[in-house]
Amino acid sequence: MDSGWDSTDGKWSAAEEAIMHATYRALLTHGYANLSISRIAEEFDKSKASIYYHYDSKDELLVAFLDFAADRFEALFDTQVGEDPSADLEHVVEKLLPLDPAEEQRQLHSVQVELRAQAVTEEAFREQFSKLDDRIVATVRDIIERGIAEGEFRDVDSTRVAEHVLAVVNGAMYGRATAERKSTAAVRVSLSSYLDAELHRGE
Amino acid sequence: MDSGWDSTDGKWSAAEEAIMHATYRALLTHGYANLSISRIAEEFDKSKASIYYHYDSKDELLVAFLDFAADRFEALFDTQVGEDPSADLEHVVEKLLPLDPAEEQRQLHSVQVELRAQAVTEEAFREQFSKLDDRIVATVRDIIERGIAEGEFRDVDSTRVAEHVLAVVNGAMYGRATAERKSTAAVRVSLSSYLDAELHRGE
Repeated sequence: MDSGWDSTDGKWSAAEEAIMHATYRALLTHGYANLSISRIAEEFDKSKASIYYHYDSKDELLVAFLDFAADRFEALFDTQVGEDPSADLEHVVEKLLPLDPAEEQRQLHSVQVELRAQAVTEEAFREQFSKLDDRIVATVRDIIERGIAEGEFRDVDSTRVAEHVLAVVNGAMYGRATAERKSTAAVRVSLSSYLDAELHRGE
Repeated sequence: MDSGWDSTDGKWSAAEEAIMHATYRALLTHGYANLSISRIAEEFDKSKASIYYHYDSKDELLVAFLDFAADRFEALFDTQVGEDPSADLEHVVEKLLPLDPAEEQRQLHSVQVELRAQAVTEEAFREQFSKLDDRIVATVRDIIERGIAEGEFRDVDSTRVAEHVLAVVNGAMYGRATAERKSTAAVRVSLSSYLDAELHRGE
């Protein structure tokens, strides 16, 4: 199983990157509750000691993993933004809240919800998820501001609209991972309706 | 510390209800990660054995607690719904996503996020949170349908709007409990804007 992530951008050594990919595979295979350094080591040809050489504890490794995942997550948006702000918004929403996620994406969302619950009590996790949310809001806000500058969108409070998008996609993804809600399609339609009303109202 | 919940509706024995209130206080005091049957027993004048007489395990007790909490949560809406659908919607949103929550409410939201993460892997938790979400959607949908029947709202798809409200309030509450987001005010404004556009557009 491959993560599909791009190769290093220089921030991570080859060894660290190999550990991150192994962590990703171990999380998908075993889930957060059953994750251990041993199980991460099993996912590649290294010993537990070689992981402890880089990370003092499972928590420290997971915080690094969140940082690594957030970098890749952001790259996913950056490389695909085009010339049409409306299409770009739609694209970002589809990346954040896929209508029909593949099984691996569903598992990834489940893992994310379990990791994120640690942020209630663990400051280092909280910082990572704050950064992730900030990146999502900044991405959506930048697209809206580009649309305003190009005259395609009304002159709205772009931060307010971006915060709304973040709340909707986080809430719907959270609901899908933790309850039997078949509401993603309804939420996607209502989010489009919201964005249309906010960005094009009166035109 | 008192939970402020109403007394029994007959579904719970006095002993069970006492255990539920003790669980509530123990969760607020110790958090989910440090909760134990001993700590629940410390919160009232009973032994651990008296708790095990009613519940076989901590997980079984917590599933009962979610059911108990959902009943009280629902009662919170029912007793306060009035004659004006717009005001009722605003009231429900304020209950779900208070602009300026008291410290106890913040702790309760944190506990809820930690409990809800268990729903990723535990079917019994998943069922309870599914029921809770269903109740919230039904409450919002009923208010919207009343507003449509009374001619105050446009003839919208009430389920779709209610699912949007659920996603927004869950997402914003989740963000507040797990990241440094100061966005509740922005989300409340954008949610009002959404509801206004959906329910009153074109009037």
